[in-house]
Amino acid sequence: MPLVDHAPIELTTFGWVPPFARGQVRDLRVRWALEEIGADYQVRTVGPIPPGYEREQPFGQVPAYREGDLQLFESGAIVQHIGDKDERLLPRDPVARARAIQWSYAALNSVEPFVMSYAALGAFYPDEEWARLRKPSARVELGKRLGKVAEWLGDRQWLEGDRFTIGDLLMIAVLRILGDDGGLVAETPALDAYRARGIARPAFARALADQLALYADKPRGEAA
Amino acid sequence: MPLVDHAPIELTTFGWVPPFARGQVRDLRVRWALEEIGADYQVRTVGPIPPGYEREQPFGQVPAYREGDLQLFESGAIVQHIGDKDERLLPRDPVARARAIQWSYAALNSVEPFVMSYAALGAFYPDEEWARLRKPSARVELGKRLGKVAEWLGDRQWLEGDRFTIGDLLMIAVLRILGDDGGLVAETPALDAYRARGIARPAFARALADQLALYADKPRGEAA
Repeated sequence: MPLVDHAPIELTTFGWVPPFARGQVRDLRVRWALEEIGADYQVRTVGPIPPGYEREQPFGQVPAYREGDLQLFESGAIVQHIGDKDERLLPRDPVARARAIQWSYAALNSVEPFVMSYAALGAFYPDEEWARLRKPSARVELGKRLGKVAEWLGDRQWLEGDRFTIGDLLMIAVLRILGDDGGLVAETPALDAYRARGIARPAFARALADQLALYADKPRGEAA
Repeated sequence: MPLVDHAPIELTTFGWVPPFARGQVRDLRVRWALEEIGADYQVRTVGPIPPGYEREQPFGQVPAYREGDLQLFESGAIVQHIGDKDERLLPRDPVARARAIQWSYAALNSVEPFVMSYAALGAFYPDEEWARLRKPSARVELGKRLGKVAEWLGDRQWLEGDRFTIGDLLMIAVLRILGDDGGLVAETPALDAYRARGIARPAFARALADQLALYADKPRGEAA
């Protein structure tokens, strides 16, 4: 039960998000990593953004992370930092370690931009003419990119074989942006099975439940 | 002169790219990091993509990197790996190190997607109606994001103060996508001065010259 009061790790997230974002707020990636290694953490909520928050998170987003005198933002960097604590997330062997970090960057720089370019059309620009015109080509480009990940995976359990790493955690979190029912991912069996293996992990389930619990009693249509 | 035959580090890039991409191919980020620490490397060119290349770079892109039994792709991960060799790029102090890595991820996941969303409209979709309609809002969104980086910088020389790190290298490489004459970056003085400080570094100048030299005698309008 890593979510405890007065834990040395403090994770900052939003106290309210609209219903479509519940289960997708990026603190989930950090919660998941902490659950994988059984590290205790406490949650601090913000919203509206407090004065001075830009010194913790320059883009006014979440998550932010504090551990002693270390203050971090950017979910990929936080997850990598947590990985450094435990070889169950980030192997100690230098080659395996570099490869895991490689997949973390790949998830966030080579896959997530394609996912977001597509997902944002419906989520953020539902009434825009350009978004309607863009959707078919964005879907094709995303499908090609997802196909490359599926080709790499082939029969592998995880991106680098039989060891789950921070690269898998971030890649699966990115794939989940397309929906837990699979969506585009479901069209590619190797990728769909990979995503399913990831979200079947007990640590993911606990992380998701804790994020959803935070919003369970919050109004759906307005900031609390 | 880190570019030497038979060096233990092999950097793979494209043997031909169209003129607009010369000076922007992502191997530049890796060359720059290697120049900062004075590490010797050799260049291998590909194009057309050789059979089996997807085992080195699943997305069929460059750079790819080999050093002994370590094979890596993803420029951010390669730059971080190079940073691990030398504290001039990645501090040894754990807090300073995590902060530098944080900015690497921020450059690639919180800034580059906005830069690419805007830059791609003209570069890849010049004749598309959706791109024409999208351009004003993409510019506004990018401008806001760049403004947040500029606010963070304030009077700082580099993102974390007086020490240049891999985070600066990647952030400045991302800003350069918008053009060396500044473009949108030039509208924000703090950001423009920061970009100028980065590209004034001798290591950057050597890296850029070596990339441009590779394409200097190549035809402009077709693959060699």
